[in-house]
Amino acid sequence: MRKIILSLMALVSLTASAQFGRPRQNPRVPSVVAEVEDFKPAVTNQENRQYPMVNSQRMVRAQISAPTATSVGLDIDGKIYEMTKDENGVWTGTSAPQDEGFHYYQLNIDGASVPDPGSKYFYGAGRWGSGIDVPAADQDFYTVHNVAQGSINEVYYWSSVTESMRHGYVYLPAEYYSNPTKKFPVLYLQHGMGENETGWSAQGHTGIIMDNLIAEGKAVPFIIYMDNGLNARRPGEEGPGFGGRRPQGQGGPGGRGFSNPFEDVLIKDIIPMVEKNYRVLADTPHRAMAGLSMGGMQTHGISMNNPTTFAYIGIFSGGTFRPEELKDNADFKKTNKLIFMSCGGKENMGVDNAAQALKEIGYNAHSYVSPETAHEWQTWRRSLYQFAQLIFK
Amino acid sequence: MRKIILSLMALVSLTASAQFGRPRQNPRVPSVVAEVEDFKPAVTNQENRQYPMVNSQRMVRAQISAPTATSVGLDIDGKIYEMTKDENGVWTGTSAPQDEGFHYYQLNIDGASVPDPGSKYFYGAGRWGSGIDVPAADQDFYTVHNVAQGSINEVYYWSSVTESMRHGYVYLPAEYYSNPTKKFPVLYLQHGMGENETGWSAQGHTGIIMDNLIAEGKAVPFIIYMDNGLNARRPGEEGPGFGGRRPQGQGGPGGRGFSNPFEDVLIKDIIPMVEKNYRVLADTPHRAMAGLSMGGMQTHGISMNNPTTFAYIGIFSGGTFRPEELKDNADFKKTNKLIFMSCGGKENMGVDNAAQALKEIGYNAHSYVSPETAHEWQTWRRSLYQFAQLIFK
Repeated sequence: MRKIILSLMALVSLTASAQFGRPRQNPRVPSVVAEVEDFKPAVTNQENRQYPMVNSQRMVRAQISAPTATSVGLDIDGKIYEMTKDENGVWTGTSAPQDEGFHYYQLNIDGASVPDPGSKYFYGAGRWGSGIDVPAADQDFYTVHNVAQGSINEVYYWSSVTESMRHGYVYLPAEYYSNPTKKFPVLYLQHGMGENETGWSAQGHTGIIMDNLIAEGKAVPFIIYMDNGLNARRPGEEGPGFGGRRPQGQGGPGGRGFSNPFEDVLIKDIIPMVEKNYRVLADTPHRAMAGLSMGGMQTHGISMNNPTTFAYIGIFSGGTFRPEELKDNADFKKTNKLIFMSCGGKENMGVDNAAQALKEIGYNAHSYVSPETAHEWQTWRRSLYQFAQLIFK
Repeated sequence: MRKIILSLMALVSLTASAQFGRPRQNPRVPSVVAEVEDFKPAVTNQENRQYPMVNSQRMVRAQISAPTATSVGLDIDGKIYEMTKDENGVWTGTSAPQDEGFHYYQLNIDGASVPDPGSKYFYGAGRWGSGIDVPAADQDFYTVHNVAQGSINEVYYWSSVTESMRHGYVYLPAEYYSNPTKKFPVLYLQHGMGENETGWSAQGHTGIIMDNLIAEGKAVPFIIYMDNGLNARRPGEEGPGFGGRRPQGQGGPGGRGFSNPFEDVLIKDIIPMVEKNYRVLADTPHRAMAGLSMGGMQTHGISMNNPTTFAYIGIFSGGTFRPEELKDNADFKKTNKLIFMSCGGKENMGVDNAAQALKEIGYNAHSYVSPETAHEWQTWRRSLYQFAQLIFK
């Protein structure tokens, strides 16, 4: 238990400083790399906005008009880059090179941390704010193509656990509409700390990745359900909804204590709702759970506490299963068809060794390391792309 | 034709100054009404954000930390309200009373116009930015209740007109899922100038309004399709996608000239796509079109240019049909089952007189005036609520 809490804290801390672009005590730094002047508007920009831009070195350049401001900074990747003012009161500044893929950022105007009016807004770091997508060599897999299109569906449902209406998203593959009698497997897919139920479809491009994979025959069509793993609270409860300890004596195997009360919402409300409202293959062999970072740890805890509920498990940048917790777990072993563990190449999570160790005790374990990425969305887009090709086959 | 262009210009101008909260040359004004200190966080706030707040007088109070700023303003409803700084560098300011319902706004920090980091973001005034919902006496009809839930579905589709993938939203009622053989009528529903395909579901609460109406038996279940009426451009075309004049000789009755090329996208791409991908009653008696402001004018023009395509027509704050254009229009008259025209009580669009005049030439015409609201979303939420109860019956 101690180990799990420590590793959770490490993840939260890592996420808060490196991924979220919302640091509190950042050094203000100049951009020191020589800049190649081939900047283009980012794909994540609002329509017809020129800034922010990205160049071939993956440097981000922001610009904002603030005629009477005395100090403006671009706050990205744990650093604030000073911007400079021209004679028209327009401030411009450029960051160091960023990893391929998606990054949260913001502007700092005379001490106010605000969204950049040039970007679209995404939920992460506990706020709706600016995001920017840095072009990647492999971006085709999450680019919209003219293939059969599924849809991301926004739904509300009643939760008996929180005694309130809750909000989530369902991905339905194209065949759900075109083949009206077919039933489909379901993946329950969770976001990370400081994010919410919009993350996987907006930053993660879940629907686009799945449509492309299915069109190429690389994945079988399945449904994906995405909820908010942070805001589930029982009536009268306060604090973060990812839950503290379970009440004594109610812990599952390992007493993981991480998934309460979201675990209850998932097991008691979400899965029954999905299996009632949609054409679902409503049995364990057709049920998967995965998540990124905190959502990976929730997947870990919930699958251990409910060992006969999910046949396929994916943990993206969320730690690893240890052989000692799975070796003699008869229910889990009998149920599990695949364990997938991934992380970014700039993280050091030992997923390859962990998969090897699980294979040695008889599990169908897979690992994936995303090249040249850290604890960030490009790692998780790629992880979903890999994981989706392995499950329900 | 001249009349139509003039009334379009009037609408755009009205919208740009009064509705969009993005004025260019606003007076900076103090708040002069005495404030009742019962401010509460707005429902449109980001999770756990205290500001902005609204009080019982419907005044909006914003707050932001900007320690080294010299001037901060709250920009709402065509005015900028000066904010004042406390000893901790936190700025606070309060607006005059606002109409019930939704308003776009922004903050102005030392000359930079930026979103308020306390609010959620909405697309209007040609940008993603801050919005605030002011409580309304009748807000129950657009509040989520524990009734059978439909869903708002995000979809991409190929457009033969723009030769690109386009993006829209489909509302499917709960019965679409629970009754898998039933076919449904479809309403095509369009946003206003400076808005996009997200407006009707986010600011308009379309899905919530429909679920509640259907649950109460006040509306029959139907599908709603919402697209972007501003960004349709043929390959190589530039400029606003709501189109200038049609090429000479290609205009429909009245040569309305307002709906090109979005009209082509709707007729050639969207309607066939919806009727192919969903279980739709694919004939004119089960097809409706409506829109707000510019979307209402598009509805007017498109229904005139395609007089046998839609049986039900709704124009919300988008002008009126004149008897002289419908009197001898045999195709339109034979097809049309209902014309609905509405506006806010603070607008003066003559919808009651217009409906009376249409009744006198044999049309089933209805009008609605939203009490105490202007050219704004509360008018359009109420208009949808009224219109939805009248169609497909």
